[in-house]
Amino acid sequence: MKDETLNHSVDEVREYHSDSCGIFFRVERSVYRGRSQFQSIEIFDNPFFGRVLMLDGLVQTTIRDEHYYHEMLVHPAMMTHPDPKRILIIGGGDGGVLREVLRHPIEKAVLVEIDDQVLDVSEKYFPWLAAAKKDPRAEIIVDDGNVYIENASCSFDVVLIDSSDPVGPSSVLHARDFYIRLKKILSPEGIIAAQVGSPFFHAAVLADKKEFLAEIFPGVRFYVGPVPTYPGGTWCYAFMSVKPDFPEPRNEPLEGLKYYNPPVHQGAFALSEALKIRLDADQPD
Amino acid sequence: MKDETLNHSVDEVREYHSDSCGIFFRVERSVYRGRSQFQSIEIFDNPFFGRVLMLDGLVQTTIRDEHYYHEMLVHPAMMTHPDPKRILIIGGGDGGVLREVLRHPIEKAVLVEIDDQVLDVSEKYFPWLAAAKKDPRAEIIVDDGNVYIENASCSFDVVLIDSSDPVGPSSVLHARDFYIRLKKILSPEGIIAAQVGSPFFHAAVLADKKEFLAEIFPGVRFYVGPVPTYPGGTWCYAFMSVKPDFPEPRNEPLEGLKYYNPPVHQGAFALSEALKIRLDADQPD
Repeated sequence: MKDETLNHSVDEVREYHSDSCGIFFRVERSVYRGRSQFQSIEIFDNPFFGRVLMLDGLVQTTIRDEHYYHEMLVHPAMMTHPDPKRILIIGGGDGGVLREVLRHPIEKAVLVEIDDQVLDVSEKYFPWLAAAKKDPRAEIIVDDGNVYIENASCSFDVVLIDSSDPVGPSSVLHARDFYIRLKKILSPEGIIAAQVGSPFFHAAVLADKKEFLAEIFPGVRFYVGPVPTYPGGTWCYAFMSVKPDFPEPRNEPLEGLKYYNPPVHQGAFALSEALKIRLDADQPD
Repeated sequence: MKDETLNHSVDEVREYHSDSCGIFFRVERSVYRGRSQFQSIEIFDNPFFGRVLMLDGLVQTTIRDEHYYHEMLVHPAMMTHPDPKRILIIGGGDGGVLREVLRHPIEKAVLVEIDDQVLDVSEKYFPWLAAAKKDPRAEIIVDDGNVYIENASCSFDVVLIDSSDPVGPSSVLHARDFYIRLKKILSPEGIIAAQVGSPFFHAAVLADKKEFLAEIFPGVRFYVGPVPTYPGGTWCYAFMSVKPDFPEPRNEPLEGLKYYNPPVHQGAFALSEALKIRLDADQPD
């Protein structure tokens, strides 16, 4: 039995990382399959990875490995900003990024997710969002991130771009104009962290992004971290700020983390020879 | 058409990373399929990864991503030893580790591979071994690594354990007795580097290994690096020495590398919170 749209049989799901390779999961139990106005949404249980969320056929989150991505999108920026109080999350409807943000002594975290169906199924089928919503510092808004920042009346200390890939509903979150608007709502010491793709599979996309980000932001740096279920197993993130240099990260203890710690933070900014050349990156060692 | 032994159809090869997940490759061209006295050997071309070598159904090397593994098994040890002249490679019949070793101003590199059929097909179907064999500093020996070190009459500055997994012909290379023997042929400043598995999929195996290595060697440290086609996309390596501390790595330029550089070296020793706990590792930050 085949579902042409989702490109798998019901007892196995695969994600292509190129036309000719990828990852497969046995489906122990199909939990949810639907299509919102923006994208296909699929949730299933795999014996090894636990519950898996796919959007448009791409793995977003699994119970077993989500901490790598969520910790590394959130904590480097939160620990580098000297005193982050107001946080904006664009995307991230599953709630994992919000959960990590709430570990910090912040005043407010606003999560802007375009797809209310992602919020609905995440609250129902994953543990984080429902828990995070109980926190009085958290505010969830269903809106297009691009529209929200155009109309935002306040500034943010840390902005986290937890987009899906640059196809489908997230395409505007990867565009030049989005970052130009974003710059306007950043506080003077503000830091943006964004997921930008696989340094192995998407190096050309990363290089393009580097080019326009460097035109917009005086401070741009890239860092990497593992995510076992993402293409190539290593993911790249970008740091942006209106100041050319970033402060040294604070070395305060954070409870409950599985991946991030201060040496991991430092090590994540060490880029491979190939990626340094590709990004024309003169990151300080 | 199915081959039960290799668990794939001829137009697609898959490697299971657990019972219920893994990686798949489309086979553009099947190059070689055979069985030596030790293991199954399969070589095929994939449009994205190029030529792929599998032993007993597990990816060992692909043209596109082999540099991650080979550079990270070799250069951390070679740059940490103050003056490595005599190098021993156990396994590594494909020649990638030997190629990396020969970038350094060494006197002698001895490669001991148990399976002459791996040497034969590597020389024929991969570019590195044939090139490395032309170097007068390289010596290739067909022997059981365990037997070779028992009878070795000289000591080595750096020993690199490029084994396959702890099943099949490499099982002895993961055992306690092997490392006890190895210690005897290490020069006073000598360093052993070994691949030890995936920190994500094989954490229990790593913890067991840490336990017996720490009983044998005063100095044991672990480090990690990406390998896109290995389970989880991140691989773990162990450093061992008869001295409790390792010198700071030399910061000399190495030509032709795609992954390794001095900041990457430092960053590789930053272990995740989960792995530090699992390995009971008190690595200096």
